[in-house]
Amino acid sequence: MKTVGELGEIKTIQRLTSMLKPHPNLPTGAGDDCAVTHIPGSDQDQVFTTDPIIESIHFLPTADPKSIGNKAAGRILSDLAAMGAQPQWMLINVVAPPSLNINRLEKIYEGITARCQTFGATLIGGDLAEGSVLELHLFGTGTLPTQSAILRSGAKIGDQIFTTGKLGGSRAGKHLTFLPRVKEGLFLRKTGWIHSMMDISDGLGSDLRHILRASHVGAQLDSTRIPTDHSIKAALFDGEDFELLFTLSPENTMPLLRAWNQKFKTPLYPIGSITNRTEQLELKEKNGTIHLIQGNGFSHFSTP
Amino acid sequence: MKTVGELGEIKTIQRLTSMLKPHPNLPTGAGDDCAVTHIPGSDQDQVFTTDPIIESIHFLPTADPKSIGNKAAGRILSDLAAMGAQPQWMLINVVAPPSLNINRLEKIYEGITARCQTFGATLIGGDLAEGSVLELHLFGTGTLPTQSAILRSGAKIGDQIFTTGKLGGSRAGKHLTFLPRVKEGLFLRKTGWIHSMMDISDGLGSDLRHILRASHVGAQLDSTRIPTDHSIKAALFDGEDFELLFTLSPENTMPLLRAWNQKFKTPLYPIGSITNRTEQLELKEKNGTIHLIQGNGFSHFSTP
Repeated sequence: MKTVGELGEIKTIQRLTSMLKPHPNLPTGAGDDCAVTHIPGSDQDQVFTTDPIIESIHFLPTADPKSIGNKAAGRILSDLAAMGAQPQWMLINVVAPPSLNINRLEKIYEGITARCQTFGATLIGGDLAEGSVLELHLFGTGTLPTQSAILRSGAKIGDQIFTTGKLGGSRAGKHLTFLPRVKEGLFLRKTGWIHSMMDISDGLGSDLRHILRASHVGAQLDSTRIPTDHSIKAALFDGEDFELLFTLSPENTMPLLRAWNQKFKTPLYPIGSITNRTEQLELKEKNGTIHLIQGNGFSHFSTP
Repeated sequence: MKTVGELGEIKTIQRLTSMLKPHPNLPTGAGDDCAVTHIPGSDQDQVFTTDPIIESIHFLPTADPKSIGNKAAGRILSDLAAMGAQPQWMLINVVAPPSLNINRLEKIYEGITARCQTFGATLIGGDLAEGSVLELHLFGTGTLPTQSAILRSGAKIGDQIFTTGKLGGSRAGKHLTFLPRVKEGLFLRKTGWIHSMMDISDGLGSDLRHILRASHVGAQLDSTRIPTDHSIKAALFDGEDFELLFTLSPENTMPLLRAWNQKFKTPLYPIGSITNRTEQLELKEKNGTIHLIQGNGFSHFSTP
C-alpha cells in the first residue's frame, strides 16, 4: 500500500490514467499536452487541458498578482499551443484563504483575461472555494481541423529537433511573464511539416523524454546548439520555459526556417536530432563526447 | 480594501464575473449552472461547468473513497442536468498530500468513472499537484440543441414550481451517494414546457433566490407541500440535495405529470408558484400565515 508521495507524480498519473476508458470521439486521451476530441458532425476537433497553479509552489506569496494571472492563463495557452490549437474557452476554480484581499484577486483576474484576450480565448466561468493557500485551477479548450493536432507520438528517426526560444533560468522572472507560443504553434501546425510537438514546462531534459517514449525513438542533443543564457544543466532541468519543442524531417527544415523568419522576429533553434536508440536521451559535448542524460527536470513528489 | 472573507462568496463571485467579457458564441456566460456556448457551424450548443470538492468542507477525511468520487462527478453531472444537457467530457485536477494512499485515490477515480459511465460522460484527463488537503477540481462539458438550454432566467409569473425529490438532511449520507438527475433533466428539457431550471446545491431557500433574481420575479412556497423527512428549515437550508428545481405554466403541469409518471418511478413535487413580487421569497404556513424567507442556505465565507 503505497502513498502518492512514495510513488511519485509520474507513476501516480500513470496509474490513474490507466483507469480511463476509450471513446470513439476521443482520438487522443490523457498523456499529451491536451486530450483531443472530435466534434461530431463537423470538420473540427476540440482539445482540452487543465493546470493548477498554487501559491509557494508555482508562485511566491509576494508575486505581482497580474503576473500570477498571466502565468495561470499562459500555462493553459501553452498547452493549447503545443497541439497547434486555436484557444477557445477557459474556466477557473479559485481556492482562496478568507484573508485574501479582493483587489489582489481582481488583479489576478486581470492578468488572466489580458492573456486570454491576446490569444483569442474567453474566460466564461468558474467557482470559488475556501482553503488555506491560494490556488488557481484553470481549464481550457481549443479547436483545430480534425486530425491535425500535433502529438508527442509522431517523431521519426532522423527528424531535426527545434525549440522556439532560450531555455533555463526561468525562475528569475520569465515563468511569470512569458508569452505563450500560441501564434507559433498555429503557424507550425499549418505548415503540415511538424511530426511531433509539446511545450517545455518541466525542462527540456525531462520533457523531450515524453516525445521519445510516445514515439519509441531516441534523441541526441548538441550541447553547443542548446540556446541558453545559463548553464546547459539549467537549460535541461530548470523547467517552466514554456517554449515549444518540435521535430520535423531534415528536408523541411530550410523551408520552415525561411517561412518562420518572414513571420516571426524571434529565431528558431535546432538543438539535435531523433535517433533509433529508443528512449535514450544523449547529449553531445563540444569535444565530441556523448553522455546519456539520466536525471529528471522538476517533478512533483520526486524523492531525492 | 476588503478581504474575500469580509466580502463573502456571493459578492466576491459577482465582482469577479463582472470582469468577464461577452463573446458572440457565448449566449449565457457565468451565473447559471453552466456557461452556454454555441458550437460554430452546428445545430448544437456546448455547456461548461466546474466544481471543487475539498476534504473537510465537502467530505470528511473518513468518507468512503468511492463515494467521494461519486459526489465529485455527481456535482458536475447535476449542473449539466440543470441545463437539460447530455454529459460529454470530464477532466480533473487532483491536489493531494504526499501521505495519501494510492489505493484510496484509485477508489476515488473508480467512483468518478462509475458515475461518468452511468450518464454517458467520459473522463479524458487532468493534472496532479501536491497540497496539504485532498481536493478534486472537476471540469465538465455537455451538449444540447442550440438555444434549448433551460436557464434560471426564464421563470414567468404564475408558473408552478416543482422539485424532483425530497429535500433536507442530505448530510446524513445522500450528499455522497445521490444519483444526479441527468435523465430527468434531459426529459424535462425535451418536453419544451420548462421555463426555468437549476439544481439545488446550497438549499431550496438559497437557490430559488437565484431563479427569482435572474427572472425578476418572486415566489411563494407552500410549506405543506415541500417534500422532506426533516423540518421545513432543513428542507430550505441544509443544501446538497442535488434535486432539480424548475418552473412551468400551470396548463402544462398535468400533461407533464402524466408523461413523467410513465417514465420515472420517483414522483415530482409541486411546491409553490412564481409571483410578481420581485425577489420576494415567501413561505405559506399550514394555517395560511405568510412569512418572508430572509436567511440563506449554506454559503462559503458567510459571516454569522
